[in-house]
Amino acid sequence: MDVLRVAACQVNTVVGDLDGNVERILAMLDGAEQAGCDVAVFPELAVPGYPPEDLLLKPGFVADNQQALDAVAKATRSCAAVVGFVDVGHDLYNAAAVCVEGEVVGTYHKRHLPNYSVFDEARYFQPGSGDPFLFDVLGVRVGVSICEDAWNPSGPIAQAASGGAGVVVNLNASPYHAGRLAERERMLATRALDAGAALVYVNQVGGQDELVFDGASLVIDGEGEVVARAPQFVEHLLVADVEVPVPFRKRLLDPRGRPPVEQLPAVVLRGRDGAAPRPALAGDLVASVLAPLEEIYQALVVGTRDYVVKNGFSDVVVGVSGGVDSSLVATIAVDAFGPERVHAVAMPSRYSSDASLADALQLGRSLGIDVQTISIEPAHDALIEMLAPVLARREPNLTEENLQSRVRGVVLMALSNELGWLVLSTGNKSEAAVGFSTLYGDTAGAFAVIKDVPKGLVYELCRARNRRAGRELISEAVLAKAPSAELRPDQRDDQSLPPYEVLDPLITAYVDEDRTRSELEAAGFDAALVEVVVGMVDRAEFKRRQTPPGVRISTKAFGKDRRVPITNRYPG
Amino acid sequence: MDVLRVAACQVNTVVGDLDGNVERILAMLDGAEQAGCDVAVFPELAVPGYPPEDLLLKPGFVADNQQALDAVAKATRSCAAVVGFVDVGHDLYNAAAVCVEGEVVGTYHKRHLPNYSVFDEARYFQPGSGDPFLFDVLGVRVGVSICEDAWNPSGPIAQAASGGAGVVVNLNASPYHAGRLAERERMLATRALDAGAALVYVNQVGGQDELVFDGASLVIDGEGEVVARAPQFVEHLLVADVEVPVPFRKRLLDPRGRPPVEQLPAVVLRGRDGAAPRPALAGDLVASVLAPLEEIYQALVVGTRDYVVKNGFSDVVVGVSGGVDSSLVATIAVDAFGPERVHAVAMPSRYSSDASLADALQLGRSLGIDVQTISIEPAHDALIEMLAPVLARREPNLTEENLQSRVRGVVLMALSNELGWLVLSTGNKSEAAVGFSTLYGDTAGAFAVIKDVPKGLVYELCRARNRRAGRELISEAVLAKAPSAELRPDQRDDQSLPPYEVLDPLITAYVDEDRTRSELEAAGFDAALVEVVVGMVDRAEFKRRQTPPGVRISTKAFGKDRRVPITNRYPG
Repeated sequence: MDVLRVAACQVNTVVGDLDGNVERILAMLDGAEQAGCDVAVFPELAVPGYPPEDLLLKPGFVADNQQALDAVAKATRSCAAVVGFVDVGHDLYNAAAVCVEGEVVGTYHKRHLPNYSVFDEARYFQPGSGDPFLFDVLGVRVGVSICEDAWNPSGPIAQAASGGAGVVVNLNASPYHAGRLAERERMLATRALDAGAALVYVNQVGGQDELVFDGASLVIDGEGEVVARAPQFVEHLLVADVEVPVPFRKRLLDPRGRPPVEQLPAVVLRGRDGAAPRPALAGDLVASVLAPLEEIYQALVVGTRDYVVKNGFSDVVVGVSGGVDSSLVATIAVDAFGPERVHAVAMPSRYSSDASLADALQLGRSLGIDVQTISIEPAHDALIEMLAPVLARREPNLTEENLQSRVRGVVLMALSNELGWLVLSTGNKSEAAVGFSTLYGDTAGAFAVIKDVPKGLVYELCRARNRRAGRELISEAVLAKAPSAELRPDQRDDQSLPPYEVLDPLITAYVDEDRTRSELEAAGFDAALVEVVVGMVDRAEFKRRQTPPGVRISTKAFGKDRRVPITNRYPG
Repeated sequence: MDVLRVAACQVNTVVGDLDGNVERILAMLDGAEQAGCDVAVFPELAVPGYPPEDLLLKPGFVADNQQALDAVAKATRSCAAVVGFVDVGHDLYNAAAVCVEGEVVGTYHKRHLPNYSVFDEARYFQPGSGDPFLFDVLGVRVGVSICEDAWNPSGPIAQAASGGAGVVVNLNASPYHAGRLAERERMLATRALDAGAALVYVNQVGGQDELVFDGASLVIDGEGEVVARAPQFVEHLLVADVEVPVPFRKRLLDPRGRPPVEQLPAVVLRGRDGAAPRPALAGDLVASVLAPLEEIYQALVVGTRDYVVKNGFSDVVVGVSGGVDSSLVATIAVDAFGPERVHAVAMPSRYSSDASLADALQLGRSLGIDVQTISIEPAHDALIEMLAPVLARREPNLTEENLQSRVRGVVLMALSNELGWLVLSTGNKSEAAVGFSTLYGDTAGAFAVIKDVPKGLVYELCRARNRRAGRELISEAVLAKAPSAELRPDQRDDQSLPPYEVLDPLITAYVDEDRTRSELEAAGFDAALVEVVVGMVDRAEFKRRQTPPGVRISTKAFGKDRRVPITNRYPG
């Protein structure tokens, strides 16, 4: 057995930022060169950023991406770089270029193009075809594959191994969802073992609109054992020595006098957009995997931070009600931006309880953020007066409940306009599903942090964050009280909705698992409950179409993952 | 030459309304039987409605669609029905069933699946393959093709003709855009001539979310001449006799003692959702094509009407400012629903001119609709007071301009909540492109009628409608004055934006034609203007994602037609 030194370059690119992405790629490549690597692998479409969506329909953008790739290639020295970009032939291809000593020496085209869930690759690309793509590094034959290619048991990885590859690299932009990592590692281990070849799996990291990428790049040996794993949700240069079985070796590897990976110095990575630089651990360390709730929490933090920062903003504002949803969002925001850049506003009405306002102010103290209080009463009063000729019934009804929520939306947006703070909205997935929200009211905002988090999971995340903090960051009072929108006297969510323990599983079955009414009943859900909830979910589609993006953590988030018609008479 | 009598059944289905669609199909089929037709052709996916989008991911929905097809098949007698539905084999297929005498006698699978523009068919379907699909009607060989299949010169139509077809039917759900009809008829005439076979092109009609379908079904003979054309934008049963060249005839056609098509009685079609029934002209009439502006106007009327009606609403409300956009939207609404079901609200502020309010009230008189006046001053004042600690500068600025627009949004939504009226928003495509709008303010609403109409075209449509009315439905004062949002004293749009004559062509080149900055400059656009406008368009993406759907009339509407990232640093 001989040894090939590989780098998995887990970068955080920005879609469309060709110059910035090249700069980031080259900084990481420089680190790989310094670590004495033979091959450095970058994520899928690292040059244009992933997913570039309809930017790909601009021929000018694709041409610029090719120029950017050339800039990367020109800077390569003895370490081969395998870099994702968009190639143009008779059509467009999702491609990987192998660059070494200043030149592109080969190009691979992705064979399996996902066109389901959040993926639209058939909209843009032609699949590659032909013999397996292989290149030689110091006599070791290396195969190339891109993302979805790896999921096909007889696909490009198996084919490359049959063609003599001792190592197969796999470039990825694999969006996070809870449970994804274990599923992915099982598949990759099987693939490596079947192929009898080592795999270098490189995933991008960071947020892009509703998607967040978890990194967790891997090096797996030909026995299916994890040799190295990069940490989740941070940029990382993962360096590992891969043992290459002798049969695949054509000539002796050049040892180059490299120190062992364990003794490599840390590479300092520039922080994204002015954030502090961060040391990327080199070495063959197998990073441990985050606990399930911690992983989801980090996904929310990183997805939110990148949305705000990549769009050129620094500060955020959250309307805090004293309830659990806004408490969690404010806490996530503080973890993403630090307390100085998070601003909270409490907006009590005539129906707000003193306890709620106290809880909101307590949250501010606990998180170390400023909480302004702006009563919505003056505008609420004025609107009731203005609408008196229209509002026939004088008792508060749904119209008036919505008025309050919309005044709050107007106040938050005014703060945003005046002070340049992005508004984070606070609705959870259970509410989004059944439309338990006011359009242009509590749905108003630039980013809906927990829109893919069901209410039950909101509580779990709060409790997990408190445990990690070792104190009541979010007070037990907030976690213990019955959820209420406080839009009328003594309102509680469970007057309009089933309890969340009942509602959440039904939403999962109907939305995430695409069951029909009759299938839900057959699965044991109460028929009357199914009738009510399915109707609410379907009727709320028009609202969901006008709400902001938020971090996807499930396999079916409201967004480009679920494309149902608004005009839809199927009873469900 | 012998004769085959064909029916193009131009129905208006509703996505998901399986029972309703079956009922509508059977009513039309009954008309075709009565007219002595040999073959009746229905649109693509007529049974589930088009496009069903992610309903297709529910196995229960697909099973229900198959049952619905069986119900159609069971009702067939001697006239063969060719009906679009979803077929299930190893995968899903966009399919056409040939049904006759109570049974499905054959099924065709669409070969060419569009996956660009507004189409996502590769997300759901596998393409069909194999020999051309043919069936016999009274000895005439008939080929089947679906929509996109026809656009391929060597595709299913040519193959069916090579296989002996004298007639090829083509089932469509072909979304409207301006200029589409001429393009389509040219292609079909070429295809028929090349194949030497008659074509029966059947298109669905009506609105479905952002798409509107124009119908205009066609029968073209083997010489490429139009034998019959159904009118645009209405349901229609088009009956025509197709001459079948003798070489394709296996036995004499059964004349059945049919009267000539010109003498067939009209078939009365039930109106959609309680609207008055309408006679569908039978016969071989070649309906004339609407003039370009009239065609766009009808698309807007039908798209708006179907969105409202198919979603179960009857009345709409429009905020009228006295400006040209809201005047056009109110006029379209009156043409769609009649004056009793259209409600207008004028919402003057301290900056509104008397002339604007007068223009709004005059519009109401001209259209015969009621205009309520609700001053926004009380809420505007209250909000300025509430926000005083935050609004550092006391002069009105953008924050305060947005406040006014948002108070109007709140008022319209309160009317909607209280009275069940759907809010029609009034922004045009030029404004949507550059983000010259207030999110949750003037963008608020259920349906954005003219979101795909550039400002210049807004004026043309108003003038064309006035000409057709023979009077100033929209007064010349409205058309002559400089556009203004009236959110500050003496504001005019041209203080913030280039004149629309300059702006609109640049937006078309950047948005619709996907040019880059440098290409725009090379095409002669002013570099400084390009810099400003491209930046505005890109920055406004977050707003467009939170605005309602509206009728698509161009080849690149804001909506599922244009999927650009929000987080996007490409300079354009």
